[in-house]
Amino acid sequence: MKTGQTQSTRYHNEKRLIKLLRNRGPLSRYEITQELGLSFGTASNLYRDLKNKGICRVDDKSRMSGGRPAQLVSLNPDARIGLVFDFTTPTITVAVSNLENKLLFKKACRGNPESGIRAVAGEIKMQTGNILSRLSLDLENVMGGIAVVPAAVDYKRSLTFCNQYSWLDKVPLAKILSEKLNIPVWVENDANMGAVAVSGRTNRRYVVFLHIGEGGLGLGAIEKGLLLTGDNGYAGEIGHIPLGDPKVRCHCGEYGCLEAHLTVPVLEKVRPDSESAEKTKEVLARLAATLVNLYDPEIIVVGCELTDIIRQMLPGAGKEISRRVLRNNLRNPLLEVWGDLNGLFIYGAAEMLFRYWLNLPVEILPAR
Amino acid sequence: MKTGQTQSTRYHNEKRLIKLLRNRGPLSRYEITQELGLSFGTASNLYRDLKNKGICRVDDKSRMSGGRPAQLVSLNPDARIGLVFDFTTPTITVAVSNLENKLLFKKACRGNPESGIRAVAGEIKMQTGNILSRLSLDLENVMGGIAVVPAAVDYKRSLTFCNQYSWLDKVPLAKILSEKLNIPVWVENDANMGAVAVSGRTNRRYVVFLHIGEGGLGLGAIEKGLLLTGDNGYAGEIGHIPLGDPKVRCHCGEYGCLEAHLTVPVLEKVRPDSESAEKTKEVLARLAATLVNLYDPEIIVVGCELTDIIRQMLPGAGKEISRRVLRNNLRNPLLEVWGDLNGLFIYGAAEMLFRYWLNLPVEILPAR
Repeated sequence: MKTGQTQSTRYHNEKRLIKLLRNRGPLSRYEITQELGLSFGTASNLYRDLKNKGICRVDDKSRMSGGRPAQLVSLNPDARIGLVFDFTTPTITVAVSNLENKLLFKKACRGNPESGIRAVAGEIKMQTGNILSRLSLDLENVMGGIAVVPAAVDYKRSLTFCNQYSWLDKVPLAKILSEKLNIPVWVENDANMGAVAVSGRTNRRYVVFLHIGEGGLGLGAIEKGLLLTGDNGYAGEIGHIPLGDPKVRCHCGEYGCLEAHLTVPVLEKVRPDSESAEKTKEVLARLAATLVNLYDPEIIVVGCELTDIIRQMLPGAGKEISRRVLRNNLRNPLLEVWGDLNGLFIYGAAEMLFRYWLNLPVEILPAR
Repeated sequence: MKTGQTQSTRYHNEKRLIKLLRNRGPLSRYEITQELGLSFGTASNLYRDLKNKGICRVDDKSRMSGGRPAQLVSLNPDARIGLVFDFTTPTITVAVSNLENKLLFKKACRGNPESGIRAVAGEIKMQTGNILSRLSLDLENVMGGIAVVPAAVDYKRSLTFCNQYSWLDKVPLAKILSEKLNIPVWVENDANMGAVAVSGRTNRRYVVFLHIGEGGLGLGAIEKGLLLTGDNGYAGEIGHIPLGDPKVRCHCGEYGCLEAHLTVPVLEKVRPDSESAEKTKEVLARLAATLVNLYDPEIIVVGCELTDIIRQMLPGAGKEISRRVLRNNLRNPLLEVWGDLNGLFIYGAAEMLFRYWLNLPVEILPAR
C-alpha cells in the first residue's frame, strides 16, 4: 500500500514506534495511532515491518471491557542487544543488555590492558563471541557496542584522553573496537554515563552526577533529558576548578583544584574528625552549592565507592546550599550518594546505546 | 484531498515548513519535499494553508537552467510580528520584530515602574496599540509577547524574583501582561536571552554568555542549540559562587561571591592599575577558565556596557584558560566582549518568541 510517505518518514516513524513501545508498551493499535499521530494504514505497515524484523509482536488480547479483542503491540525485548565495555578499572568488563536495558550477562576480561589497547580489543572480541554463542544470538541482533572510559572523550577527533591509564590516552578507541568487532561502537565518559543512569533510574530530567573516582573527579549533567557534552565533548571537566584549598597543590601544578581533595585515594587517607576531614567536607559543600546554582538540578548524585564517607559529608553540603543558593527553598534538589559504579555505568551506557541505535536525540526520558 | 495524515501531523509539518523557510528559504517545492520528507500532495496542502494565512508566498520564478519555471516558496516576513518588552532598565522598551527577526520599531515607555507593575502593563498596552496602528497591523498578526527581565524566572511558579527592582520581585509578570494585552506572553531572564542572541548572530550551538550588569552577574548557556534552564529556570545563577576573594563580603552576607567583584557599579569604582584592578582581573580569569571546563563552549561573550574595561581583562582570562584547562589547545573558545545589551536582549528574545510561537523545542540553530 502506497501511503504517500517517503522512506525517510517511514524510518523516522519506525524509530518513534520503537521508542514509544519501550517507554509505554504494550499498547493497542488505536493508542499508537493517537500517540504518533498516524493513520491506521500507516501504523499497520510499521507493525508489519517491525514484526518481520522480529522487533515487535502483535498479540490478540481480550480487554476487561469485553467486545472485540484489541490487538496489543509490544516490544520483543531480546530481539536486539547492546554490548557495553566498561574500561573504568584495569579489569575490563563486557556486558550484554537487551532492548529494555535488562542486563543479560556480564563477564570480566582477564587480559592486562597494559599490553596495549589492540590486545584488549582482541580479548573483547573473543569474550563477545563466547557470550553471543552462549545466548544463541549473532551479530545481526547486536545494536552496537559502547565503551565507558575514565577519560575525556573528544567527539570531534574521536579520541580519548586519559591521565589515569596510559592505554586509554590519545586512543581512537571507537575505531579500534568497531573494526575489530565489526559493529558500530561509541565511546563515552564515565561520569556522563552515570548521569544518564541516574536520569533513567530516577525518572528525572535534570540531573547532576559527580563521580569521585580512583583517578579523578568528573561531572555529568542532564538537562531536559539531554546529556550535556559541550562542543568537543569536554563539558563537566570539573577537576581543576579552583573551589578547593588555595594552599593545596594539585598534580596538574596549579593550586586550589577540586581534584586535589575529591578522589578515592585522597579521601581514603583523610582521618575522621581531623582538620583535613573538615576541609574536605567544606570543599564538597562548596561544590554542591555551586552545582545547584549553575545547573538547578532535581537531583545531585555523588557516585563513589566510599559511600559511608560521603554520606557523612552530605548534611554539611545541604547547609552550604541553604547559605549559597538564593531562594534555596524553591529549588531543593535531592542529594544522594550511590555506589556500585560498574553496574551504574553499564546501565547508563546501555541506555545511551539504545538512543544511538535509533539515531535519536540523546533524550533520556519522554518530554513532559 | 485526504492524505491519511491526522491534524496533529499536519500542524507539525506546518511548523517544520515555517522553520525551514525561515532558515533556508526561498526554496523550490522539490527542495521542500526532500528536506521535510513529504510527498508533493502533502506539501501542496501545506503551502495552500500557509498562503491562506498570509504566512508564505508561492512565486513562479524561471531558473538559470531553463525549462519549466520552478515554483519558489518563501516566507512573508511581515505576516507575523513579535513584541519584546525589555525590563532590564527602569526605562522599559517595547520593540517589534518580524518573522525574520528584523527590528521594525522600538520605543521607550515614559512611565515610572516604581508605581507598580500593573501601571507599567497599562502603558505597555497603550504603546503596543500605537505601534501596531502605525505599522497598520492588528493583534491577529502578533505571535505573542516576551518580556526580558534582570531577574530569576521561576518557570514552574510563573514568577520573577528580582533583587534589583522591587517591581519585578515575586511578580507573575507573564500573567499580568498576557491578560492586559490579550496575547500569549513569555518571560525570560536577560542573560539567557543574551546567550540566545549570541547563538543566533554567530551561528554557534555551544555558547556561554556572561552578563555583567548594573545589579548583578548572570550567565546564560546554550548547548547543542538549546537554552539551559535547569529544573525550575534558575540555571546559571552564578553570582554567589565562591570564586572571588574570600575576604570580600557580598551583599548576600557570604564571602567570596563573584557578584561582589563583577557588576557595573563595582567595576566603575576600580581604579586602573590598582591592586583591586589586578584582583578583579584574576576573578574574571578564574571564572572564564571555570566556564571552559564546565561548558566546553565555542564562544564566551561577556555582555557588559563597560566594553573598554572588560576588553583589557580578556588577555589575562585567556592565559588562565591555558593554565586551568587541560588540553586547552583542543578547545579554545572565542572570548569576546559585547555592548549594546538592549539591542542584544531584544534580538535574543524575538528569536525565543519565534520558537515558542511554533511550539518548537527551543533550538536556536538547525542540527548539524
